Amino acid sequence: MTTRIAICCPGKPLRRARAERVEELAAAEFPAAELVFHPQCFLETGHFAGDDATRRDAFVDLANDPANDAVWFGMGGYGACRIAAEAMTRLGEAAREKVYVGYSDAGTMLGALYRHGIGRPVHGPLLGDIKREGGADAMRRVLRLLTGAAVPLEAGLDERPAAAFNLMTLAMLVGTDLMPDLAGHVVLVEEVAEHLYAVDRLFFHVTQHLSGVAGLRLGRITAVPENDRPFGMEADEIARHWCAKAGIPYLGRADIGHDAANALVPFGRASAVAEGASEA
Amino acid sequence: MTTRIAICCPGKPLRRARAERVEELAAAEFPAAELVFHPQCFLETGHFAGDDATRRDAFVDLANDPANDAVWFGMGGYGACRIAAEAMTRLGEAAREKVYVGYSDAGTMLGALYRHGIGRPVHGPLLGDIKREGGADAMRRVLRLLTGAAVPLEAGLDERPAAAFNLMTLAMLVGTDLMPDLAGHVVLVEEVAEHLYAVDRLFFHVTQHLSGVAGLRLGRITAVPENDRPFGMEADEIARHWCAKAGIPYLGRADIGHDAANALVPFGRASAVAEGASEA
Repeated sequence: MTTRIAICCPGKPLRRARAERVEELAAAEFPAAELVFHPQCFLETGHFAGDDATRRDAFVDLANDPANDAVWFGMGGYGACRIAAEAMTRLGEAAREKVYVGYSDAGTMLGALYRHGIGRPVHGPLLGDIKREGGADAMRRVLRLLTGAAVPLEAGLDERPAAAFNLMTLAMLVGTDLMPDLAGHVVLVEEVAEHLYAVDRLFFHVTQHLSGVAGLRLGRITAVPENDRPFGMEADEIARHWCAKAGIPYLGRADIGHDAANALVPFGRASAVAEGASEA
Repeated sequence: MTTRIAICCPGKPLRRARAERVEELAAAEFPAAELVFHPQCFLETGHFAGDDATRRDAFVDLANDPANDAVWFGMGGYGACRIAAEAMTRLGEAAREKVYVGYSDAGTMLGALYRHGIGRPVHGPLLGDIKREGGADAMRRVLRLLTGAAVPLEAGLDERPAAAFNLMTLAMLVGTDLMPDLAGHVVLVEEVAEHLYAVDRLFFHVTQHLSGVAGLRLGRITAVPENDRPFGMEADEIARHWCAKAGIPYLGRADIGHDAANALVPFGRASAVAEGASEA
């Protein structure tokens, strides 16, 4: 039985060479997976992979097509918040049966889907992550997940529901009409290419908006630009500081980040997605 | 009659050479102004001008001292959100009689003061802006304001209350316990050294949190880093886009920004501050 995986890009475009590499890998190792790239993936309109209407419609078409089993986001970058709200209003029944995989800016789509209870959002590698060192293994994890094979999820997920976000993406979601209710959730965050003072500032903002969560776990904070002086605190001290101020339990590190090791984190209960995967 | 102006730094430290230049200018041109620098201004603790308790206490001491007529923030940078909430709980009656001037990260202090109805927050040059081209004129505007002399405010302020913020600073304030109620206000925003995609993202976030404001005005968006591709929209198109989405009237440009021309914008009604200044 074939798993049809449809790819679109809510933010920036995907390079064709990356698409081809993942197609080759899937053809060689995952004969049960069929990858379908929406042509929108390769468009370039200023910063974006096509204008807002084009990106929105590409996603909506893929999600509403009953022939597709999953939507895999090709790239992050920036742009999902420009299309997510309108996209949600156009999703039909077929969109509810799907798994959605991505992270970084595409986490905006996952958050909006989760808010509306549509499908199974899963934080995990973007298709474009094939470019990273170890990227092939990242692709294999997603393809295993989507074809219903056994695959490790983020370690330490328990019966409490979880959600994972890029920190900046989450900071922009909180309080908006895209933000899911994360009460009782373990929330995992990661960041890339932000100064530590900016990470600190984002933690101030996010922790004030996350009251009621079960706890927070810190993924990798990578590619921190060099500043004119050291910040004076490491990332986990920042997380501890703001969690303590906000009364949020700090639950330690998480295996997520802008790298090929970026773990799979199903939104909601991990056990539920495992069942969903084996049903598929 | 002397106006005693006390200076502290809620974020990063002030260089002594800048303090000395402003002292000289004030001595030569504003004999009625007395500048008092809290020693905290010159401390260096990692990123900050002293640790959180030191910066907080410096501000609280200056604000609570009845001998001071105004608190002028020396520098922005980052750090005010780490001290503002605790500082507000320690302010007494003398803090209510003062004018507070600054912007950028120090806008966090202004926002928190305005939320609590304490004193007269005014968006305007930081003392450290003496370093900028035209910085002496920026100092003169603040010194005229604080000594009760006639001085131009941001053009176009009317009977509606106003508030002005750095866009990132405002984005981090919204929804937190530092955020003032801006219903009915004209809100002015400016930004520096952010990519246009980041400005767009901040507008998404901020406009969702600003429902009920009278309108939004766009200051200067400067020092935009070069990206690997053009964003495809100018800053005022971004502002128009998100204001339209959120149903916020877009009221055009404003004369604020990270430069020496950065206009004075009293929080609340401009007429009220003009009366306050002439009483002083």
